[in-house]
Amino acid sequence: MNILKLEDLKVEEIEELLENAIKFKKGSKKIDYNGKKVIANLFFEPSTRTHYSFEMAEYKLGCKTIEFTEETSSIKKGESLYDTVKTFESIGVDAIVIRHREDEYYNKLKNINIPIINAGDGKKDHPSQSLLDLMTIKEEFGKFEGLKVLIIGDIKHSRVAHSNIKVMERLGMEVYTSGPEEFKDEDFKFVNYEEMLPKVDVVMLLRIQFERLEKEMSMTKEKYNNLYGININRVKQMKENAIIMHPAPFNRNVEISDDVVECEKSRIFKQMQNGVFVRMAMIEKALNDNSINN
Amino acid sequence: MNILKLEDLKVEEIEELLENAIKFKKGSKKIDYNGKKVIANLFFEPSTRTHYSFEMAEYKLGCKTIEFTEETSSIKKGESLYDTVKTFESIGVDAIVIRHREDEYYNKLKNINIPIINAGDGKKDHPSQSLLDLMTIKEEFGKFEGLKVLIIGDIKHSRVAHSNIKVMERLGMEVYTSGPEEFKDEDFKFVNYEEMLPKVDVVMLLRIQFERLEKEMSMTKEKYNNLYGININRVKQMKENAIIMHPAPFNRNVEISDDVVECEKSRIFKQMQNGVFVRMAMIEKALNDNSINN
Amino acid sequence: MNILKLEDLKVEEIEELLENAIKFKKGSKKIDYNGKKVIANLFFEPSTRTHYSFEMAEYKLGCKTIEFTEETSSIKKGESLYDTVKTFESIGVDAIVIRHREDEYYNKLKNINIPIINAGDGKKDHPSQSLLDLMTIKEEFGKFEGLKVLIIGDIKHSRVAHSNIKVMERLGMEVYTSGPEEFKDEDFKFVNYEEMLPKVDVVMLLRIQFERLEKEMSMTKEKYNNLYGININRVKQMKENAIIMHPAPFNRNVEISDDVVECEKSRIFKQMQNGVFVRMAMIEKALNDNSINN
Repeated sequence: MNILKLEDLKVEEIEELLENAIKFKKGSKKIDYNGKKVIANLFFEPSTRTHYSFEMAEYKLGCKTIEFTEETSSIKKGESLYDTVKTFESIGVDAIVIRHREDEYYNKLKNINIPIINAGDGKKDHPSQSLLDLMTIKEEFGKFEGLKVLIIGDIKHSRVAHSNIKVMERLGMEVYTSGPEEFKDEDFKFVNYEEMLPKVDVVMLLRIQFERLEKEMSMTKEKYNNLYGININRVKQMKENAIIMHPAPFNRNVEISDDVVECEKSRIFKQMQNGVFVRMAMIEKALNDNSINN
Repeated sequence: MNILKLEDLKVEEIEELLENAIKFKKGSKKIDYNGKKVIANLFFEPSTRTHYSFEMAEYKLGCKTIEFTEETSSIKKGESLYDTVKTFESIGVDAIVIRHREDEYYNKLKNINIPIINAGDGKKDHPSQSLLDLMTIKEEFGKFEGLKVLIIGDIKHSRVAHSNIKVMERLGMEVYTSGPEEFKDEDFKFVNYEEMLPKVDVVMLLRIQFERLEKEMSMTKEKYNNLYGININRVKQMKENAIIMHPAPFNRNVEISDDVVECEKSRIFKQMQNGVFVRMAMIEKALNDNSINN
Repeated sequence: MNILKLEDLKVEEIEELLENAIKFKKGSKKIDYNGKKVIANLFFEPSTRTHYSFEMAEYKLGCKTIEFTEETSSIKKGESLYDTVKTFESIGVDAIVIRHREDEYYNKLKNINIPIINAGDGKKDHPSQSLLDLMTIKEEFGKFEGLKVLIIGDIKHSRVAHSNIKVMERLGMEVYTSGPEEFKDEDFKFVNYEEMLPKVDVVMLLRIQFERLEKEMSMTKEKYNNLYGININRVKQMKENAIIMHPAPFNRNVEISDDVVECEKSRIFKQMQNGVFVRMAMIEKALNDNSINN
């Protein structure tokens, strides 16, 4: 089956993915395809974490990987995404992982008969990121119901925010957003940052796009850091057991100060670690679940 | 041994390669080098199908692969092709697959002591493409003798055409070419497209280079499509059992209309599928046949 | 442990690395991590030999590899080297191989908890190159003590020269340098090329940077070749058992004439071959030696 967005999955399916990811991490679940499965990774946007943790997940499952590079492919001769993906289907890869700059690129891939795993589409969804965020929260608090999350930054343009808010609400979490007015998304609860900070269990930061900040809003990095960046003083206002998350790459001393990146409350590198295990669970589900959803 | 062009191979050797490819596809032949063979893929031109189906073939044979990228190599410091290939020989790779923009680049590689498999040289040869075309025809008709093929497009500049015509004639096929006068190659039979279409068993389309079409010939894509493109009306004029082939990437609605790409007579994606198996057969032959031909 | 520069290693450790490399080459030492170790190769500068021979070494040890490409990574979004490497640590790679354009880039990587193997930093060190040079000398002469080496070329800007001279002197070799005055490094013995040539056991050539030669020194390639290049006439003046080495890529007919590259005294391609085995020894040491030196 395809895994394109979490909206397509039932709550029980999401819970099962997270449980499997935690089992993979603990070592109580093991799968070895023994080199018999080949997965192609097609990244049409720069990526370090998502790309290489998918590759790592594939290795841990005993898959072989094909690393597609747009620059040296027939895309340069004008070949379409559909024809490129159909080629990978034809040569016999077992599943395909795609990150693409276009929203819902997968709508163009209706007639593909191998599982597609979405590694991020435009400003829309980023299901593996949401799952690794959820896994990190679940490991920390053992539950979702009733937890309060504050997401700070460019809510409007963030696929991480969009992917997360809906699934978090489905899981019973209370999600608040904050940041500059210009970044507000009318669809979600918008609150005062300083007021809400001491009340939440999870502070989730988003990456700032400098172009948007400086050109469209005439706001300097320093001012953003001053108004919305998390620093060690703001960390002190957080609840005792509250944690800090960021999908990365982060801008040091813009949305997050240097002294917070690896502080006691930060789960940023744990998120990256967990990313490998949720991706293992996603790949396993995509390969094994024959229900048709594309 | 090297596999540089099909001209170097006897008809029996070609038949044997095709038989082995078909056996690999059926699963009646299996080889597993078990990670003990390492093959380097050197692609100096953009490629999706050829590149990744060679990689897939290597994986299916249990080989490890090294993916060379020109942009990040010492070629950028002026290192020659010979010295690059000699480096791969020195570090111990077992065979090398090369696509290069230069005709007969392999003439510069006389003193190399590992097998070279040509994945396409300039406008000259593309032996793995020819073999996958032949395999597709053989699967379809069970024979070559007496089959009629019509190749349409830029015959003069196409390595697919050049590679194919000679070997097809050696195998007893009748090969005709058609397309704009400017693309004609004096060495081959040139016929009227509409007249020949209903008489052939195989219609083989070639990819149009827009630069050449629009700048050198002042012909629009629409006009080309109108005059020489295959569309569903032309498909209806074909013989009942005739098939359509294209080496891909194809230009939709130029040499082939959207509704023909995946029509019943199209073998385009089957060609891609077969590409993996002929490449397995080529690699096996290159690794195992110690006859010296370089 | 990290392997950043040979200065950090005791003479006995260097000797042990070389012995292990020779055993790997002979086949009397074998290690197979059986796909359980994953090594990431991060090359921030063009490289053919070093990059692919590290990959080959990793394959021969039964490791899986992740090939990082700067161009398609989050470095493009401004992510730092530290945060990039911390990401690879987080996703669970077992060791990391880095080539970087900056001198001592590793000083920025203090808090990394997986082994770092330096594959070349700026103009400073290139430990795997030094080790493969030493292995080639050891195979040839069976010892280091008392051997005379003449290094010719741009001593001042060469990380190969810098890495080599210090370790060679520690091993009891006499190292002399020569070339244009502009390339002289005051720290090392500088001699007349023609006078010293017949007296040394090893002639080690360095790659010429044309930019520096032509723009800064107004010297043509032809003049450099004439004054300092090794050609078959100069080869005749060498001692009977003396050998020629070059780290490559070499500029044919600049620092080395065409007829010398593969002459009887040249060990250039043997150096490349040996590079795989010293890198196997380095990786094994990095993975197995838990002493902390970062």
